[in-house]
Amino acid sequence: MSTSFSHRHLLGIEQLSKNDIEAIIDLANRYAFQNRSTHKNCNRLEGRVVVNMFFENSTRTRTSFEVAAKRLGADVINFPVSASSVSKGETFSDTVRVINAMQVDAFVIRHYENGLVNLASTLVDGAVLNAGDGTNEHPTQALLDAVTMLRHKKTLQGLRVAICGDIKHSRVARSNALLLKMFGAEVRFFAPPQFVAKDWGLDVVNCKSIEEALKGADVIMMLRIQKERLAASEAAINAESYHAQYGLNHERLKLAQPDVIIMHPAPVNRGIEITSELADDARYSVIFEQMEMGVAVRMACLDLLLNQTA
Amino acid sequence: MSTSFSHRHLLGIEQLSKNDIEAIIDLANRYAFQNRSTHKNCNRLEGRVVVNMFFENSTRTRTSFEVAAKRLGADVINFPVSASSVSKGETFSDTVRVINAMQVDAFVIRHYENGLVNLASTLVDGAVLNAGDGTNEHPTQALLDAVTMLRHKKTLQGLRVAICGDIKHSRVARSNALLLKMFGAEVRFFAPPQFVAKDWGLDVVNCKSIEEALKGADVIMMLRIQKERLAASEAAINAESYHAQYGLNHERLKLAQPDVIIMHPAPVNRGIEITSELADDARYSVIFEQMEMGVAVRMACLDLLLNQTA
Amino acid sequence: MSTSFSHRHLLGIEQLSKNDIEAIIDLANRYAFQNRSTHKNCNRLEGRVVVNMFFENSTRTRTSFEVAAKRLGADVINFPVSASSVSKGETFSDTVRVINAMQVDAFVIRHYENGLVNLASTLVDGAVLNAGDGTNEHPTQALLDAVTMLRHKKTLQGLRVAICGDIKHSRVARSNALLLKMFGAEVRFFAPPQFVAKDWGLDVVNCKSIEEALKGADVIMMLRIQKERLAASEAAINAESYHAQYGLNHERLKLAQPDVIIMHPAPVNRGIEITSELADDARYSVIFEQMEMGVAVRMACLDLLLNQTA
Repeated sequence: MSTSFSHRHLLGIEQLSKNDIEAIIDLANRYAFQNRSTHKNCNRLEGRVVVNMFFENSTRTRTSFEVAAKRLGADVINFPVSASSVSKGETFSDTVRVINAMQVDAFVIRHYENGLVNLASTLVDGAVLNAGDGTNEHPTQALLDAVTMLRHKKTLQGLRVAICGDIKHSRVARSNALLLKMFGAEVRFFAPPQFVAKDWGLDVVNCKSIEEALKGADVIMMLRIQKERLAASEAAINAESYHAQYGLNHERLKLAQPDVIIMHPAPVNRGIEITSELADDARYSVIFEQMEMGVAVRMACLDLLLNQTA
Repeated sequence: MSTSFSHRHLLGIEQLSKNDIEAIIDLANRYAFQNRSTHKNCNRLEGRVVVNMFFENSTRTRTSFEVAAKRLGADVINFPVSASSVSKGETFSDTVRVINAMQVDAFVIRHYENGLVNLASTLVDGAVLNAGDGTNEHPTQALLDAVTMLRHKKTLQGLRVAICGDIKHSRVARSNALLLKMFGAEVRFFAPPQFVAKDWGLDVVNCKSIEEALKGADVIMMLRIQKERLAASEAAINAESYHAQYGLNHERLKLAQPDVIIMHPAPVNRGIEITSELADDARYSVIFEQMEMGVAVRMACLDLLLNQTA
Repeated sequence: MSTSFSHRHLLGIEQLSKNDIEAIIDLANRYAFQNRSTHKNCNRLEGRVVVNMFFENSTRTRTSFEVAAKRLGADVINFPVSASSVSKGETFSDTVRVINAMQVDAFVIRHYENGLVNLASTLVDGAVLNAGDGTNEHPTQALLDAVTMLRHKKTLQGLRVAICGDIKHSRVARSNALLLKMFGAEVRFFAPPQFVAKDWGLDVVNCKSIEEALKGADVIMMLRIQKERLAASEAAINAESYHAQYGLNHERLKLAQPDVIIMHPAPVNRGIEITSELADDARYSVIFEQMEMGVAVRMACLDLLLNQTA
């Protein structure tokens, strides 16, 4: 079976068609299978250079992209933002163009500011992959979440997905909602008052309480409190009272479907948005499976973008 | 000649048998030979991913493991602890499990806290290599020290090894003593009063003065003052008076065997635990040879753990 | 065509002959061609280990060397200076010797202090490449500048090259002047009063004004204000008045030859040493082409040093 892919960049779910997404999911599933075998690596990207440019702290996403690229045989360069020319007053555009002049093949970019990843895509000859930009999009997260859901649920069509927590600052919520609505899922948002998002123009159900969001849910996605993105005043959150009012625990879980799965983009604040016991409960939690699928999805994206076919 | 190795992890000297250690030393000697040849690299770990997770600053050990893994053909990922989710409140266990979900093959872990490397080994599917945990163990250091000693001395049996300096904070002293006692060496500890270790239950000779430790020694191992691990009060050490009372110099060296070798796990504080002249005296000092053997030992450990045979 | 190269290290332009430089330029041009083709990588340095040791912040140079080394098939290790034993009181010499003991093949070293890169070359078995030392030399920059000039100008002989800005702190100016004078170019320096260099014994024309330097110039090289290398008092520069007095703009450019090219070692302080419009004016600016040639030149240097022939 062959798949073709016509995009030069992966900027957001918004730019993708259902066909595009299905192509990525298909290939990701093949890579997920390969990643569990003895021969995990191949040479689809041999001789290609992938640069990780993370203007915002990250562990899992950067490492996940690095594992993905290396597993495909690419060379990976971690652009050291903290030690970089950024601190010498260079503009973002110049930094990107300088790296582009070195003829690298793919730019994996995370930036704290909306829109800069898109800007980068207009400046380079290679492929740009959005690894999270501001509060805009985090497309590989939504794709890995979709792959994970489809390993537990027959279809996204009609699936009731509750996304709960700090919606306001969450590019994960936004990318997931965009993808899930495209495939006919019912998306419910629940956010504590200080974390309600402006209207993104998405056809989601805004719930008044976490209980309303959880009722009959097939999938629960708990978002973390993005402490590092909050202003000092907002961050003054009492962990215990937050958990009591808005957190997920075994008791509240009873509202959901018996075969509900629990997701989290991680890192998890145990005891705040979710109890430690529930995060570890293998009957429901698929949090580490999400990480596994993350590598497979990023392999699929890099492969499709750099080879245009799979 | 084939060697088999049955451990999944390298947590400490304490978990190894004499046979295990001899297998590592044998293979390390073969790699040491290969490392001096034109063709230093091979593909024993092709397609494998080794992750360096250093929760404590390090240069030589991290770099040594990285050179070792790359020389065997592995891909290496340096997990950026400072930029990591650790600062986002994630637990150590979750961090390890997240990386594990990416199906990496080996975890090289250094941690400032005793026991966390062992904990990691219970959480992952791959191999865990202890690159130093708290004041507990630093097994590859003891192994490279043994390889180095055996290049200069016929046997460890009966060898008089003086380990001098900050014993209290030294996982190097502890791992070395465990290994050396297993092979019948006489291990002598000398520590300044503030650096005397609690009783580790090891059959070592605790000396009252550096002179007593050095007398007739075949091997002298000087430990560095671990400034970065000392509380502020303890660290108020006067370099000159420390050196005068407890440091190694040519004069004191006369107490030892004429063919004594001088070792140091480095980095060396020249003029404190050892004179600069003695650190550079090629008749005695094998400090840089230790670094060379470090790569060979780490190649041997990675190879044996990931291939179970050599 | 075969090229031989007899140097073990690349310490500065000062140590090179015209033949040496021509050999590097020839090979760099071949790599520049290869870098624009589909098959950018080769295995000339397969199995070799290149260590980047940057004791001073850098993005482009470190990344450029890393891309270059990987494109030749080498393994690259980024020595983490900030997390390193340097902070544990180890001497520079010991740090270098420790890495050398690991049998790495090439040391790419940048240091804020003059002379330490040369010192390193006396301590190691492999090749040392100067990636910029203090205010002394930055030879790969001068080489990539020469390659870039020769893509636009027939010869360096008689070429009028104006180097303007912070000459005093600029190893780039010094390495360029050394190379250009060797090939018969006319080198003009213009520096604002606080940035005039001591006499380097080079046969350059010291201009009193930027206008004098630009008049009839074939090449203009604008240097950046090295804010990070200036003492606090010196750094108190008003961007607008600096630009008005000493900056390059379209108006001043009229003094130069119509086919003048504009170069900059980057990162560019747009609006200070050069207007943003001019930095982006494709009729004159070759700033990003310099970056491209940087990779090719570093590939050529690594190849010639480690293989002694090409």
